[in-house]
Amino acid sequence: MSNPIRVGLVGCGYWGPNLARNLHQIPQTELAACCDPDPRALGKMRMLYPHAITTPEHRDLFTDPDIEAVVIATPARTHYALAREALEAGKHVLVEKPLAMGSRQAEALIALADERRRVLMVGHIFEYHPAVRKIKSLIDEGELGQVYYIYSTRVNLGRVQSDINALWSIAPHDISILIYLLGTMPQSVSARGGTFLNGVVEDVVFLVLSFPGGMLGHVHASWLDPSKVRRMTVVGSRRMAVYDDVADEGKIKIYDKGVYRKGEDIYGEFQYRVHSGDIAIPRLDMAEPLRIECVHFAECVRQGRRPQTDGANGLRVVRVLEAAQASLEQGGTTVSLTV
Amino acid sequence: MSNPIRVGLVGCGYWGPNLARNLHQIPQTELAACCDPDPRALGKMRMLYPHAITTPEHRDLFTDPDIEAVVIATPARTHYALAREALEAGKHVLVEKPLAMGSRQAEALIALADERRRVLMVGHIFEYHPAVRKIKSLIDEGELGQVYYIYSTRVNLGRVQSDINALWSIAPHDISILIYLLGTMPQSVSARGGTFLNGVVEDVVFLVLSFPGGMLGHVHASWLDPSKVRRMTVVGSRRMAVYDDVADEGKIKIYDKGVYRKGEDIYGEFQYRVHSGDIAIPRLDMAEPLRIECVHFAECVRQGRRPQTDGANGLRVVRVLEAAQASLEQGGTTVSLTV
Amino acid sequence: MSNPIRVGLVGCGYWGPNLARNLHQIPQTELAACCDPDPRALGKMRMLYPHAITTPEHRDLFTDPDIEAVVIATPARTHYALAREALEAGKHVLVEKPLAMGSRQAEALIALADERRRVLMVGHIFEYHPAVRKIKSLIDEGELGQVYYIYSTRVNLGRVQSDINALWSIAPHDISILIYLLGTMPQSVSARGGTFLNGVVEDVVFLVLSFPGGMLGHVHASWLDPSKVRRMTVVGSRRMAVYDDVADEGKIKIYDKGVYRKGEDIYGEFQYRVHSGDIAIPRLDMAEPLRIECVHFAECVRQGRRPQTDGANGLRVVRVLEAAQASLEQGGTTVSLTV
Amino acid sequence: MSNPIRVGLVGCGYWGPNLARNLHQIPQTELAACCDPDPRALGKMRMLYPHAITTPEHRDLFTDPDIEAVVIATPARTHYALAREALEAGKHVLVEKPLAMGSRQAEALIALADERRRVLMVGHIFEYHPAVRKIKSLIDEGELGQVYYIYSTRVNLGRVQSDINALWSIAPHDISILIYLLGTMPQSVSARGGTFLNGVVEDVVFLVLSFPGGMLGHVHASWLDPSKVRRMTVVGSRRMAVYDDVADEGKIKIYDKGVYRKGEDIYGEFQYRVHSGDIAIPRLDMAEPLRIECVHFAECVRQGRRPQTDGANGLRVVRVLEAAQASLEQGGTTVSLTV
Repeated sequence: MSNPIRVGLVGCGYWGPNLARNLHQIPQTELAACCDPDPRALGKMRMLYPHAITTPEHRDLFTDPDIEAVVIATPARTHYALAREALEAGKHVLVEKPLAMGSRQAEALIALADERRRVLMVGHIFEYHPAVRKIKSLIDEGELGQVYYIYSTRVNLGRVQSDINALWSIAPHDISILIYLLGTMPQSVSARGGTFLNGVVEDVVFLVLSFPGGMLGHVHASWLDPSKVRRMTVVGSRRMAVYDDVADEGKIKIYDKGVYRKGEDIYGEFQYRVHSGDIAIPRLDMAEPLRIECVHFAECVRQGRRPQTDGANGLRVVRVLEAAQASLEQGGTTVSLTV
Repeated sequence: MSNPIRVGLVGCGYWGPNLARNLHQIPQTELAACCDPDPRALGKMRMLYPHAITTPEHRDLFTDPDIEAVVIATPARTHYALAREALEAGKHVLVEKPLAMGSRQAEALIALADERRRVLMVGHIFEYHPAVRKIKSLIDEGELGQVYYIYSTRVNLGRVQSDINALWSIAPHDISILIYLLGTMPQSVSARGGTFLNGVVEDVVFLVLSFPGGMLGHVHASWLDPSKVRRMTVVGSRRMAVYDDVADEGKIKIYDKGVYRKGEDIYGEFQYRVHSGDIAIPRLDMAEPLRIECVHFAECVRQGRRPQTDGANGLRVVRVLEAAQASLEQGGTTVSLTV
Repeated sequence: MSNPIRVGLVGCGYWGPNLARNLHQIPQTELAACCDPDPRALGKMRMLYPHAITTPEHRDLFTDPDIEAVVIATPARTHYALAREALEAGKHVLVEKPLAMGSRQAEALIALADERRRVLMVGHIFEYHPAVRKIKSLIDEGELGQVYYIYSTRVNLGRVQSDINALWSIAPHDISILIYLLGTMPQSVSARGGTFLNGVVEDVVFLVLSFPGGMLGHVHASWLDPSKVRRMTVVGSRRMAVYDDVADEGKIKIYDKGVYRKGEDIYGEFQYRVHSGDIAIPRLDMAEPLRIECVHFAECVRQGRRPQTDGANGLRVVRVLEAAQASLEQGGTTVSLTV
Repeated sequence: MSNPIRVGLVGCGYWGPNLARNLHQIPQTELAACCDPDPRALGKMRMLYPHAITTPEHRDLFTDPDIEAVVIATPARTHYALAREALEAGKHVLVEKPLAMGSRQAEALIALADERRRVLMVGHIFEYHPAVRKIKSLIDEGELGQVYYIYSTRVNLGRVQSDINALWSIAPHDISILIYLLGTMPQSVSARGGTFLNGVVEDVVFLVLSFPGGMLGHVHASWLDPSKVRRMTVVGSRRMAVYDDVADEGKIKIYDKGVYRKGEDIYGEFQYRVHSGDIAIPRLDMAEPLRIECVHFAECVRQGRRPQTDGANGLRVVRVLEAAQASLEQGGTTVSLTV
């Protein structure tokens, strides 16, 4: 095996420590440096990883010739500027979601990465989750039949933010999963929400996404909820599947359930037969998704490959977020995404 | 106690047998007659209640002078005509939800009942449910603080209908509960859905209701879902409550959870403190809601009282349904309800 | 179809009303008469089944020539005397569990039924439960491999009794299921318990049953528990199964789990490989077990067949109960059942 | 704060890595050295903690004058010899449960630690668990009334062992908790089990413990079970509590449930009233129990204090295990523990 990639981590607050742990543990990378303006966050990193350089200045990382790659886990509004600066410094970049706060910025990052021949990857972690990948394969192999609709609930109490709303903070996960599972962009999106805490940013957001062929997506994202729920239901014509990320015993349930048309009755109305059969809980190889993501980043850097969640992938999510934000601001009107 | 009220039941299909059982069991009523065009449904009634008259003709009930009151549990599209005919025949009427398929019809029924001095009641059963009433008292007593939003999921596999959509078939329950809990009509409503099975009626519907003061309601209703879910979450500023109608151990959970503003940080941004405390599962006196509803109907008939879910109550729900239907047909635009 | 069998029910307290409902609803029987010394219990029966004769005197039923069969749902200590009297009066008899409070009495009833050529059946309802039958077929078809052990928890709060203990009141269900599933009598049994409430009868009982071939059974029965649990786990060499009677979604889970010997390590110690695969929740046709039981009784009466839970079946359970009672009284010593 | 205590860890297999992580993370200790005969286990430690010495020879640690304390997480049969050697070398010792495989050995360790004035602590981790401590305070403050009985289920699939049985491997946790909660030793114990996998060591064990005053304990321990269950139920005269270590939402549920004597009925039999009230899920400060344990060990070393789970505590558990083992070998006879 080649030498581990020396990685610098920018942002050691909420999510950064998880990245640090994985970058330290996998053999493909070495956690070479950590950066955060908060001395307490930095102190924790120094204690856990005494070998790593710690600095409050991200430029110290970007100018360090021994650091090949940078992982950015800072507040969303700083993603674009930091990623641009890192790419300009010649670093490979893994940036947390969302890639940027606008599609223009996302496009600029893509162009820059292409120009500099550097890896640009977005941390859409659920595309690396064994459960999501299993659902993807069930759909692709036709196990669920034609997909009718998918709805997702991602709510919790906490991580209240005052600079970005629940749409930009939480829903990128669901949008990323929906595009991945259905293999296509939505044609339009509408969004409604409530700004209960500070009257400015939405704490709760409901999204409706229209996909080609009549497929529907619905997302409920909130940081103002009594329970932690991370559940996604895929309703297909043949079978239905539920992916519950906090389930004790098997994160995926496949229901052999469907509704079939029996033909018309004497009045010409359609009659339906409901079929309700077995439930299967497939075994999943439960590697930690973040570990899979970090290994994938390292392999793309080492082999010059394009990541699954590359800049274009991140741009697609940003475009949906932009359209949803526009809908939110217009009181829920449907915003088209067709180019 | 006065003599039991002799009641005739029209419609012995899906829900009718539950009404029959309660009308037979409570001392305030006597199940005097059953009517259904389907001989098999009628045969079952005859076997269970050999004392009751059975007939395929509802007019036999309406013209029977010994029958004081009529309960209508037929397909929704027939509610108006049957209720009108029963009122015109001088009967007190309990009609299943929705009261009618339009507000004009609902208004006509209200006027007719007033004119004939007969009880007109709608079967909005959840207003008689001990769990919903408990939530109502928690809200009214300020236990939850200011209500921010309520969301409801009422999904299942089955009861696929081809003449009315999931909005008119399922969502009346949630709309009735929301108006009851919040004590006010919504100001506007928007709806999106999918017509997956027959391309005509929505199998799945998502509603957003805007209430005065910024309160939000969200309803997800579907007959095309792998699991039976009947869950409603009330998020208040002080506490949060979940009412799960299929929970094993206590249908209501009260979470001593909230988010409080700590003041601004040095950059002028709001800081929040998340409080996560005990959970309480209050004991409920679990009488069957349908029994409570039937007893209430009998008492209103006997005492000339106005039911909690009277015609005006039923009309309010129909008006929201109409607005939501209009939104559905317009692709989800927000439809105002302020008159 | 032949005429329904006219059945008299003795005992309309706790369980009797469920029997009454089923005897009334199935076409094979007619609930002809109800008997209970408590006028309130009798009044409820009269209201629900106005056609049925009601009487406080069981002899009225036994001497009624129009009554062919008698169902006995009285306190356990009266089962023997009432069943004997009914058989002597020429009635077919379905008696609730346990068949009697001792094996001598059970044997006497069997002999009497044989002599009078009457059906004697015990209400070991779980042998008619689709979930238990499914587990039985999984075992018989080798799906679980060799059965190692089965443990059962049947606890709840309530039905506190002061004349019989939890062993005789609750555990007959589990003993009946264990003998049915394993197809053999236990060789020995030991029992421990606690007499917390009145110092005389056990509120809580733990049983260990040794079956041929080293198979083990364990039963925990109690009426002094915070939660209603009715769960049985079957651990086999190839797969494991859990039957949870209060589960929402599928009462049976089959775990493709097992432990296999890998061979000896260098020190001569056995090494094991744990296999943890998919989980399957098979669909069950969920007819009400009590309805299946009542239909079976009626068919045995009409066709002169021997019921699955005949007198001999009831005797086996009584013999285990007797041995367990002896163990309880001796402080938990193992009591042999081999004759 | 004084300098961190330099700790050497012996045993880096199953549980050792968790100890290593905590010893590394808490400021009171420094993970100075790791020892394991398996080079792969040692390699992992070296990667995660590059500052720590790694060696396959425990004597390297015991003879290192810079190491003040030793943590022993090796197979149970080696606990005694290693702990003795460490104490003789003048080290403070934290040894995993069980303290030793016999009470003589445990007594010898206690004497040696006293003689050398060194801390001897056993890793009975659940005495440091916030949920167990909460239950303890509920009992001590009389919230549950008089404790009738406690039963515990600790089962899982995996960690199959061939040198010690499930009694010695799993049940020490439950025995430790029971003695802690009830504040007294059991007077006698009986045990039954099954040796399904290798015919020698019990994979499944059922224990019954008799405590003073008629209190009963029951333990079900197994490594041959389809589900991971770690549940303990405390039934008191006033309230009941369930501690479920794998529960999503609150590990403790307190049931306001009880059974009260109403007086005698006309036949002189006791009548009972079942009270079933609210359920409370108290909030727990969920620090990691192992972290609390490690901090406690460090504080005892630094301050010369006696740990909560000192040698005497460990000896009590070993004495119960010895008695249970004797009962197992005698087919389940009750073995007295009175000295």
